[in-house]
Amino acid sequence: MSTKPVILVTNDDGVFSPGIKHLVSIAKTFGDVIVVAPDKPQSGMGHAITINSTLRLEKTNFHGAQTELACSGTPVDCVKMAVNNILKKRPDLVLSGINHGSNSSINVIYSGTMSAAIEGALEGAPSIGFSLCDYAMEADFTAATKFIKQLIDHALTKKMPKGVCYNVNIPKLREDDIKGIKFVRQAKANWVERFDERKDPYGRSYYWLTGEFINFEPEANDTDEWALANGYISVVPTQADLTAHAYLNDIKKTF
Amino acid sequence: MSTKPVILVTNDDGVFSPGIKHLVSIAKTFGDVIVVAPDKPQSGMGHAITINSTLRLEKTNFHGAQTELACSGTPVDCVKMAVNNILKKRPDLVLSGINHGSNSSINVIYSGTMSAAIEGALEGAPSIGFSLCDYAMEADFTAATKFIKQLIDHALTKKMPKGVCYNVNIPKLREDDIKGIKFVRQAKANWVERFDERKDPYGRSYYWLTGEFINFEPEANDTDEWALANGYISVVPTQADLTAHAYLNDIKKTF
Repeated sequence: MSTKPVILVTNDDGVFSPGIKHLVSIAKTFGDVIVVAPDKPQSGMGHAITINSTLRLEKTNFHGAQTELACSGTPVDCVKMAVNNILKKRPDLVLSGINHGSNSSINVIYSGTMSAAIEGALEGAPSIGFSLCDYAMEADFTAATKFIKQLIDHALTKKMPKGVCYNVNIPKLREDDIKGIKFVRQAKANWVERFDERKDPYGRSYYWLTGEFINFEPEANDTDEWALANGYISVVPTQADLTAHAYLNDIKKTF
Repeated sequence: MSTKPVILVTNDDGVFSPGIKHLVSIAKTFGDVIVVAPDKPQSGMGHAITINSTLRLEKTNFHGAQTELACSGTPVDCVKMAVNNILKKRPDLVLSGINHGSNSSINVIYSGTMSAAIEGALEGAPSIGFSLCDYAMEADFTAATKFIKQLIDHALTKKMPKGVCYNVNIPKLREDDIKGIKFVRQAKANWVERFDERKDPYGRSYYWLTGEFINFEPEANDTDEWALANGYISVVPTQADLTAHAYLNDIKKTF
């Protein structure tokens, strides 16, 4: 029996995307890899799970991993399926990505990539979501390999607390221009949406969601947006507790 | 021009569900109501948004509100669409629900109901998500009306801080048995999944996601689970910051 760590790799761009291919190739240098990833793009799926319909699993062999399955569900479904139905135990590490595009600041709550990592943490496994701030399909995923390996080593040597995962964003830079890793907080930011209204061939309206990203604290130097803008890989320790603790203490006294 | 507050009502069970019907009827006693809600059930959609496909809007008149639209997207899409494309301004209040079933503790991250409320808070509006701990379609949504009104009044009189919304869960009790409102934190809890594997008529496997809810801190008396188990309506102030702040302070020093 192998004594290597068991590493689950998933993503939200789909099992056949370049980003997951590179992440699997790195993961293989650390342990036995199982890939359970969506059979189609699932960007923007947030922490969605499939409860009103059913799930399918299909074997693939795109990555040369020990086990590879394409799942018809969301990234979170993939993690639940892998842990509870395929491995039937907690993996030693959950990796999600590498996402094609940023998941910094507020994007974390819309991100399928990060929701898979958060679900990994909820399952009790050290979990990391990786995103490259480059939406191009021909993006260079290799520039940050050294730092990705450093973070995987950190996670496998049990340096992450239970229930916390890492939201790792990689700036679009050449290898030599990446200055290092910064542990930072999620910047306060938001999207201002615009809906692009068009007419279908039958004259009826349909809409595309578009938007502009607004950083509410461009001056702050302890955020992921600051780290990325200054040439660093940003790492935000992330957890699934949405309680506004500071405000809770106030309102308890006054309501 | 009306000087009444503008109240956006949405949900995740779909525009025709009994829970939203009762919430709209309450909202109408406070202001001008606009309903933009999913055209079909969207439970478990989390903070999903529609970016790989298009959105449709259809007029309905199920609730007798000033404006009523059924949207083909997720609950978060509905809020973005209402604020940026229909109202073209921030509403005075965003209400989501009343959900058919609990959204306490960890359910908040899977919940379409709460994601709509969180999105409302991100848009800068006071926002409340309501859920009744009863999955039956014939559930009694009226028992908590008095308390729902109290919370809406609290929100409209500008007592909520910006960026924070309320996750309100209502126990399945008769009106006289509800003891009141408790402001509490999200309990540490999780789902242990089981995938129910079945065969389709063609002999191929498909899966239903099922699971068992585990409260990791049944003794704690400051959580939403405790409040609900003890006859109270639980209110968790909720925000979209997922940073694990306490751990961030540690890792910054040691990495």
